[in-house]
Amino acid sequence: MALARGYAATDASKPLAPFTFERREPNADDVAISIQYCGVCHSDIHTVRNEWKNAVYPIVPGHEIVGVVTAVGSDVTKFKVGDKVGVGCFVDSCVGCASRDLDNEQYMPGLVQTYNSVEADGKTATQGGYSDHIVVKEGYVLSIPDNLPLDATAPLLCAGITLYSPLRHWNAGPGKKVAILGMGGLGHMGVKIAHAMGAEVTVLSHSLSKKEDGLKLGADHYYATSDAETFTKLAGSFDLIICTVGVAIDWNAYLGLLKVDGSMVIVGAPEDAIPVHAFSLIPGRRSLSGSMIGSIKETQEMLDFCGKHDIVSEIETIGIQEINEAYERVLKSDVRYRFVIDMASLAA
Amino acid sequence: MALARGYAATDASKPLAPFTFERREPNADDVAISIQYCGVCHSDIHTVRNEWKNAVYPIVPGHEIVGVVTAVGSDVTKFKVGDKVGVGCFVDSCVGCASRDLDNEQYMPGLVQTYNSVEADGKTATQGGYSDHIVVKEGYVLSIPDNLPLDATAPLLCAGITLYSPLRHWNAGPGKKVAILGMGGLGHMGVKIAHAMGAEVTVLSHSLSKKEDGLKLGADHYYATSDAETFTKLAGSFDLIICTVGVAIDWNAYLGLLKVDGSMVIVGAPEDAIPVHAFSLIPGRRSLSGSMIGSIKETQEMLDFCGKHDIVSEIETIGIQEINEAYERVLKSDVRYRFVIDMASLAA
Repeated sequence: MALARGYAATDASKPLAPFTFERREPNADDVAISIQYCGVCHSDIHTVRNEWKNAVYPIVPGHEIVGVVTAVGSDVTKFKVGDKVGVGCFVDSCVGCASRDLDNEQYMPGLVQTYNSVEADGKTATQGGYSDHIVVKEGYVLSIPDNLPLDATAPLLCAGITLYSPLRHWNAGPGKKVAILGMGGLGHMGVKIAHAMGAEVTVLSHSLSKKEDGLKLGADHYYATSDAETFTKLAGSFDLIICTVGVAIDWNAYLGLLKVDGSMVIVGAPEDAIPVHAFSLIPGRRSLSGSMIGSIKETQEMLDFCGKHDIVSEIETIGIQEINEAYERVLKSDVRYRFVIDMASLAA
Repeated sequence: MALARGYAATDASKPLAPFTFERREPNADDVAISIQYCGVCHSDIHTVRNEWKNAVYPIVPGHEIVGVVTAVGSDVTKFKVGDKVGVGCFVDSCVGCASRDLDNEQYMPGLVQTYNSVEADGKTATQGGYSDHIVVKEGYVLSIPDNLPLDATAPLLCAGITLYSPLRHWNAGPGKKVAILGMGGLGHMGVKIAHAMGAEVTVLSHSLSKKEDGLKLGADHYYATSDAETFTKLAGSFDLIICTVGVAIDWNAYLGLLKVDGSMVIVGAPEDAIPVHAFSLIPGRRSLSGSMIGSIKETQEMLDFCGKHDIVSEIETIGIQEINEAYERVLKSDVRYRFVIDMASLAA
C-alpha cells in the first residue's frame, strides 16, 4: 500500500479538506501515475454535495486526471515509466457483465467510476484525482499526445469526450449544421471539436457576453437565446443541437430549431423532467436524445483527434487550496472555461 | 364541375350528416376516382370535433381512400380507367417550397392534406374520402397491388404507412427487437408489418384481452403493461418501441425498456407534454422521437411490401349511416381493429 495525499469531502455540507488515504501497489496489469493536473467538473460538486443521492464518504473527487507514469506492473505492455497519461471518468467496466461491449462500456451496468464507486474487488472504494497519485488498470489509462500541454489537456478526459462522443455519433462534419447550447466548460469544447470536425457551428448562449471567445474558438455564428428573434430566425436550421446546460429551458422552442431528422442531445442533466410536446417531435421526425462520456477506445480516439488538431481546453489553473472557492465560482458560471488544479500545490 | 355526395361535419358539436359538394373536373395531370371504401382514422374525429383547433367547416373527412379510376387527364401516364388505386393523407406537397424534398414531403410546410386543407390554387378547400368520388393529381395517387382486397387495404393508406415508415427508418428487421405499444388500429398494423420485416415483435398492451389476436397477427410476445413486472422483466430489451397510444403513460418506465441506442418513437399524439427525465435518456444514449405518415414514394413502397406479404388491416365494415356511432366506438377502443366505410352505402 502506498499512502496518497489529496483533498476529500467527508460529508455533504463540509468544504473539501486535506485527506490521506491508501492506494494499492500496482498489480501485474496496473499503472501507477503521479498526478500533475486534475480538472474540476460540475459532477464533482454534484457528487460531494450528495445532490445525486449516492455519495459514500469520504470522497476524493476528480476525473479529469493527467500525469506521468511512475511504475508499471509486469503484464503492462502499452505504458512505461515517464509516459504522459490520462484517466477519465471510469477505471474499470463491464465488471460481472455477461456480454462485454467495449464500444459502449460507459453505458454498461458494471462500470466502476473513478471516484465514489467500488473497485472490481467489490469492496475497495475508488478515489479520484484531487490527489498526488493513482493506480489504474492499464486498459483504462489513456495516452496523451506529445504536442498537448498537460494542464489544458486534463479537461478533455471528461468535458472533451462528453462532447466528442455525441458529435461523432450524430455525424457532425462537413455540410452539417451543429448548435452548441451553452458556452461553458462543456460547450466551449464542443465548439472547438465540432469546428475541427468540419461542421458549421453555432453557439446558442443566454447572452452575447462570450461571443468574441466563441468566434475565436471556432464558432461560425453566435446567438443570444434571451432574444426571442433567435428562435424565429433559426427555426428548422440544425441537424444537431448539443445541450450542455443543466437547467430548465424552453425545450420545445429549441426542438423547433431542428431540421427534419434533427436531434437534440442532452449531455447536461437538468433536475426536472423535460416537458416535450409530441408535436415538437412528430412533424419533422425529430429526436430528443441523451449521451454520456464515451468508451475508453473512443476517449483515446478523441485525444488523438485533439492532438492532431491542437485542441485543448481553455483553463484557469488553481492551487488545491482554492478548490472550495472554485466550486462557488463554477456554480456561478464564473470561469473561462474550466478550472484545473495544479497538483504541485499539494506540497505547498 | 362534378357534384359529389358524402358526409360532412358542419361544426364541432354536430354529428356528420349527408352533404353535397363540387369536385373539380380532372385537369391534364389529374385522376378521377370512384371511392369504394374509406377507413376511419382517429384523426378524422380530432379534426371534425376541432380538437386540433384548425377546423374549417364544412369538412368531409377521410384519408384512407381506395377506389377505381374512372377518368384520367391527358398528361396522366401511370393510371388508366379501371385501375385500383388509393389516396392517403395528402394530395399535394411542397407547394411553394424553395427546395422540394420528395423523400420527406410529409414534413414539408407546403403539404396539402386530403381534407381540411387548401389546394395548391390557394383557395379551394380539400374534401376527403367519406364521399363517392375524388379528383387527385397523378403524383399523389397510389397503386393497389392486385392481390389485396380493396376494403381491408383502405387503412394501409394512413395506419399502414404510419407504422411502416418508422419501422423502416429505425431499421426493424432480423435481429432487432421491436415493441409495439398499443394494440389498436395503428398497433395491429405495426405487429403485422414488423413481423413481415423479420423483427422479433412484442406487443405491450394495457391488458391481455387481445393477446390471442396479437400472436395470430405475428407477435412473438405479448405483455400487459398494467402488470408492474412487465417493466422489470423487459428492462433494457428493445431496439425500438413504437408508441401508438395517444394518452398519458409512464413515459420514463417505457424509456427504461430500451437497449443502449434504442429509440422510442411516438406516432400517436398525447395531448399533454411528455415529462422526460434526462436520466432516462443519458445513460444508454436513448432517444425519444416522433414520426408522421410517410412520403408518397414510401407509401407506394409500403403498399408493394404489403402486397408481397399479403398484409391488410383487420376491419369492421360499416355503412356511412353508422359513422357517428362508429366514432363513439373508436373513442372507447371498441373496434377490432379499424372501421372501413363501404361507400356503396351512400346510395342506400
